[in-house]
Amino acid sequence: MTMQTTTTPQAPVAPAHGRLRPLGLHEVRITGGFWGDRQKVNGTATLEHIQSRLESEGWLGNFDRAADGTLPEGRRGREFSDSEVYKFLEGLAWEIGRTDDPALEARFRAVVARVTAAQEPDGYLNTRFGRPGQGARWSDLEWGHELYCLGHLFQAAVARVRTRPGADDGLLGIAVRAADLVCDEFGADGRDGICGHAEVEVGLAELSRATGDPRYLEQARLFVERHGRGTLRDIEWGRTYFQDDVPVREATSLRGHAVRANYFAAGAADVAVDTGDDDLLAALRRQWEHTVARRTYVTGGQGSHHQDEAFGEDWELPADRAYSETCAGVGSIMFAWRLLLAGGDPRQADLIERTLYNVVATSPAPDGRAFFYANTLHQRVPGVPADPAETSPRASSSLRAPWFEVSCCPPNVARTLASLDAYVATADDEGVQLHQYAPVSVRTTLADGRVIAFDVETDYPASGSIRVISRGDAASGAPWTLTLRVPAWAAGARLRVTPADGSPSDDREAAPGTAELRRQWRAGDVVELALPMTPRLTAADARIDAVRGCVVVERGPEVLALESVDVGVDADVADLALAPGATPVERDGRVWIDVVDRGGDGAGWPYVRAGEAPAEAASRSVPLVTYHEWAQRGPSTMRVWIPATT
Amino acid sequence: MTMQTTTTPQAPVAPAHGRLRPLGLHEVRITGGFWGDRQKVNGTATLEHIQSRLESEGWLGNFDRAADGTLPEGRRGREFSDSEVYKFLEGLAWEIGRTDDPALEARFRAVVARVTAAQEPDGYLNTRFGRPGQGARWSDLEWGHELYCLGHLFQAAVARVRTRPGADDGLLGIAVRAADLVCDEFGADGRDGICGHAEVEVGLAELSRATGDPRYLEQARLFVERHGRGTLRDIEWGRTYFQDDVPVREATSLRGHAVRANYFAAGAADVAVDTGDDDLLAALRRQWEHTVARRTYVTGGQGSHHQDEAFGEDWELPADRAYSETCAGVGSIMFAWRLLLAGGDPRQADLIERTLYNVVATSPAPDGRAFFYANTLHQRVPGVPADPAETSPRASSSLRAPWFEVSCCPPNVARTLASLDAYVATADDEGVQLHQYAPVSVRTTLADGRVIAFDVETDYPASGSIRVISRGDAASGAPWTLTLRVPAWAAGARLRVTPADGSPSDDREAAPGTAELRRQWRAGDVVELALPMTPRLTAADARIDAVRGCVVVERGPEVLALESVDVGVDADVADLALAPGATPVERDGRVWIDVVDRGGDGAGWPYVRAGEAPAEAASRSVPLVTYHEWAQRGPSTMRVWIPATT
Repeated sequence: MTMQTTTTPQAPVAPAHGRLRPLGLHEVRITGGFWGDRQKVNGTATLEHIQSRLESEGWLGNFDRAADGTLPEGRRGREFSDSEVYKFLEGLAWEIGRTDDPALEARFRAVVARVTAAQEPDGYLNTRFGRPGQGARWSDLEWGHELYCLGHLFQAAVARVRTRPGADDGLLGIAVRAADLVCDEFGADGRDGICGHAEVEVGLAELSRATGDPRYLEQARLFVERHGRGTLRDIEWGRTYFQDDVPVREATSLRGHAVRANYFAAGAADVAVDTGDDDLLAALRRQWEHTVARRTYVTGGQGSHHQDEAFGEDWELPADRAYSETCAGVGSIMFAWRLLLAGGDPRQADLIERTLYNVVATSPAPDGRAFFYANTLHQRVPGVPADPAETSPRASSSLRAPWFEVSCCPPNVARTLASLDAYVATADDEGVQLHQYAPVSVRTTLADGRVIAFDVETDYPASGSIRVISRGDAASGAPWTLTLRVPAWAAGARLRVTPADGSPSDDREAAPGTAELRRQWRAGDVVELALPMTPRLTAADARIDAVRGCVVVERGPEVLALESVDVGVDADVADLALAPGATPVERDGRVWIDVVDRGGDGAGWPYVRAGEAPAEAASRSVPLVTYHEWAQRGPSTMRVWIPATT
Repeated sequence: MTMQTTTTPQAPVAPAHGRLRPLGLHEVRITGGFWGDRQKVNGTATLEHIQSRLESEGWLGNFDRAADGTLPEGRRGREFSDSEVYKFLEGLAWEIGRTDDPALEARFRAVVARVTAAQEPDGYLNTRFGRPGQGARWSDLEWGHELYCLGHLFQAAVARVRTRPGADDGLLGIAVRAADLVCDEFGADGRDGICGHAEVEVGLAELSRATGDPRYLEQARLFVERHGRGTLRDIEWGRTYFQDDVPVREATSLRGHAVRANYFAAGAADVAVDTGDDDLLAALRRQWEHTVARRTYVTGGQGSHHQDEAFGEDWELPADRAYSETCAGVGSIMFAWRLLLAGGDPRQADLIERTLYNVVATSPAPDGRAFFYANTLHQRVPGVPADPAETSPRASSSLRAPWFEVSCCPPNVARTLASLDAYVATADDEGVQLHQYAPVSVRTTLADGRVIAFDVETDYPASGSIRVISRGDAASGAPWTLTLRVPAWAAGARLRVTPADGSPSDDREAAPGTAELRRQWRAGDVVELALPMTPRLTAADARIDAVRGCVVVERGPEVLALESVDVGVDADVADLALAPGATPVERDGRVWIDVVDRGGDGAGWPYVRAGEAPAEAASRSVPLVTYHEWAQRGPSTMRVWIPATT
């Protein structure tokens, strides 16, 4: 494994300013464990699966048809299908950066060649618009997704240039030509438009960072500021759907379509940071805080409506109709990560961890070839397995499906997993911050030029034991600060430093937030962080009506669930409630909880005089499943929130 | 007021068989009170308002354009807009039957003339299909609504022929020609199709009853039996949406689109009754029982999904995302009424009462010119008043709106209110059954030819006192049975009979269900039914997760609600909970309940370690509003279910 140290991190996000500097793939490498296993499946099975589907669905073929002039006849897929190809390319680029796999490199170049051939001479690139028989360019900004697709193209090109600077595949050139066209068309003197699905903003901002061209950042800024002014036509669900209802500085919460809302906020954060716009950044922080406090599921998932894939009102978080789209989880990580880099607030890393374990890890099947698009917190009827040969028309599938008519989630998961190393740690002038816990090797250069290195050894979250072993490359021996995140749920965490020189170890409690260890690190110094992994019962704010009187069992960063296959063949989780006074216990590698049956025949008018006590029932112990592992044993019913009062 | 006595009741439903015979407008007349007031507004303001909108929206004009050959250019409205004209005609027909208003009669004839002119020579009638430039006839059975529209035409024609037999307006002829075409096209040897929106089944069955032509009943039977066999193409939400997933005899619950489901079940009930198909009737009864036990709101409303306006799974009854479409309430009454006529089960009259007071009465504004389409049970943010000059694109409007792009609900309410007299009472060989309580005059002829008459005097539901005064027209003096429904909620009801001859009155408890009084009724005999109207706290089955730990206050048949305008100007009902041990009390003509504030800043991660006790708070008394009267005092937040455990 070769690691470079450059000033531009091999990472999806590289702000011009900010409290923390992200460490890229050349500086942090996940070496195994929970996420390493998933990256392996992603790099082999998932990326191949996605390409196979992009071919069989004809979404890659659309580019060939654009090149040979046979569009619009035979164009296949929805208006945003180009973007799946770009997300796939982005995932490939990160994976090539991680693995140097020549087969992936060849595959990448072959796909880029097909995309290249489809670009118009003036830089325009989209297989759905602009040709005779198609809608005119930019004629349907509300639903056409042209700029959205280009945003993903830009992110793919940035991934490539950051992992293979100077590569001659041509992807960066495609992106630059398209971006120039966008600036010509939508600049300050141009068309006063925005895209109905935010994404081009993050793409342009990052392309500006990667190329040094300030024009792209300015264009991103224009797009951000044009939101909320009725720039788009009204639609059935209102302009809230695409964040065109309220100017970004005046909004108090994320709202509307949950993926759009997070992508937009992430793009606005990029603009705020790189233009030094503290007011805008403060507005975004307030929106994030409000959204986390009132519009986020315990899994970290976001989006309460199936109808418009949107946030609900404050406190509207139904478990059974949770939409919690996988892509909204990815978008939430994008937004939170940018705020974390800008300000260093560990609560953003907390949310990222929660979302990674309970949304991103939930979507793919163990074989990496089927996915959840929506992530319900309560499955009332056993799902019907998807036909692997079919494309599921329904995003709200109750079992993982290999592909969807709208298939944004699989490549979004793939690009996230392939770049996950870049979300583990950051650096500042004082040292390095560890935000996520996984087995990693870290080697980076501090601002003063010192190269420092350490490894993390852990089987987290199986246990809460995290060992950081200094590799002592700081020749000068001058002190630097290692900052460890102590998750908000980890009250009672302990931290012990054992110097390599045999001097006494220092053992102390580490309060939730961050623990800073400033010392002259030497090779072999060991830091042990012990996070308490005792399963715990968690309740919701009383205003979250949907789960009133319920508890959820959590263990470390993982949310657990009650699944019918663990209860009995024909059991329905609707008939179970927490036994009075029950607490979760670990036994035989699983977490168990005592429940009581509280069924009844469920016949007759279900609204009865209040105050009638339920019949007493015998309790029994049932095992729970981690939420991200549910629905892997066939059709089942499942609930995350367990009734505690009946 | 002239009352005829004929063998065919002036009523929307006149089955060939069944336990009970409906009494029509010529036999029962509502003379005032809660429903009489609403009928007055309906007959004046609402019918005029609807016609005005049908004109301004161009939906009536579509018929003119069909007649003068200028379609499809300039056709306006959705594919089902013809049906609103037919529902309006049906409402007019009942209102003319009730009032003999010559202005309404003239209006009715003028509209019928315009419809007449649009009918094709072979009987086909639809302004959206069949012309050059339009889709071919029957080419889109999933979404085209052609048969649906005709079903409403048939119901309108039946309303007319039952209230004005022999009238020369021609509406019956239009209907018969269209029905003959449907039978030719979709008969046993014809096209194996059904309509994506059930309705033609009830229309055909009733047209068969009204004309005596068995062919229409047979066609209705064919349509019913073809459902559930994959007759229609699959759609995003599955064939469940239009009840084409499971054959009607095998289904266990209403499911899919809630209006479609109820209309379909009503049509199937008509077929079952008139063909003597007891197996089918039993299957429908089971579906009704399941639906009432597990898929119905405390208001009687049905439909839990905004996305597809559909039933959810069992126990899935979110208050805040309740769809509870007004038309689904109307459909539920249609279905329940048919089961009641067939078998006499008072639980169906209970559900009808609940749905009338809490869904049908909730929809129209007091002035009869604005309507709820969806009827949420929990309004989280104050709604935005609809612009009276605009047509609301959103069915889920949080305040009543004058009209909708899909405007099924206003005319559906209008036809229901105009024919409401026909849902009050029935007769059998033994006597008369009173199902709903309102000031009415009843005069009918029993099977043995005796004419009997009585009046009901009551201010119900203001009070629970209901007086039935015999008018003693039974010359023979032979006994007959007066059956009174005692609602399921009315435990402790009392019944007293005071004979006109001064003999001692008989006073006894009347258990919920039905109370039968068999005696030789004489003029002046008085029955007094005293229903207990003390407000009561009601809780839900523990499996209805959305309202766990909550109570609703009910008073008589009315559901009450907590509305922010009664709590404080900037109050949010999300911040209130029932004070421990609180019970509702009546004071100054309103019902009051003690609540506590349990707000908090609502900042920070909302999921905390379980078991932390909420802070104690001082209680205060707040008045409740009847649910059907909410949102009449400007934008507000509202909740029907009040948290009782926090």
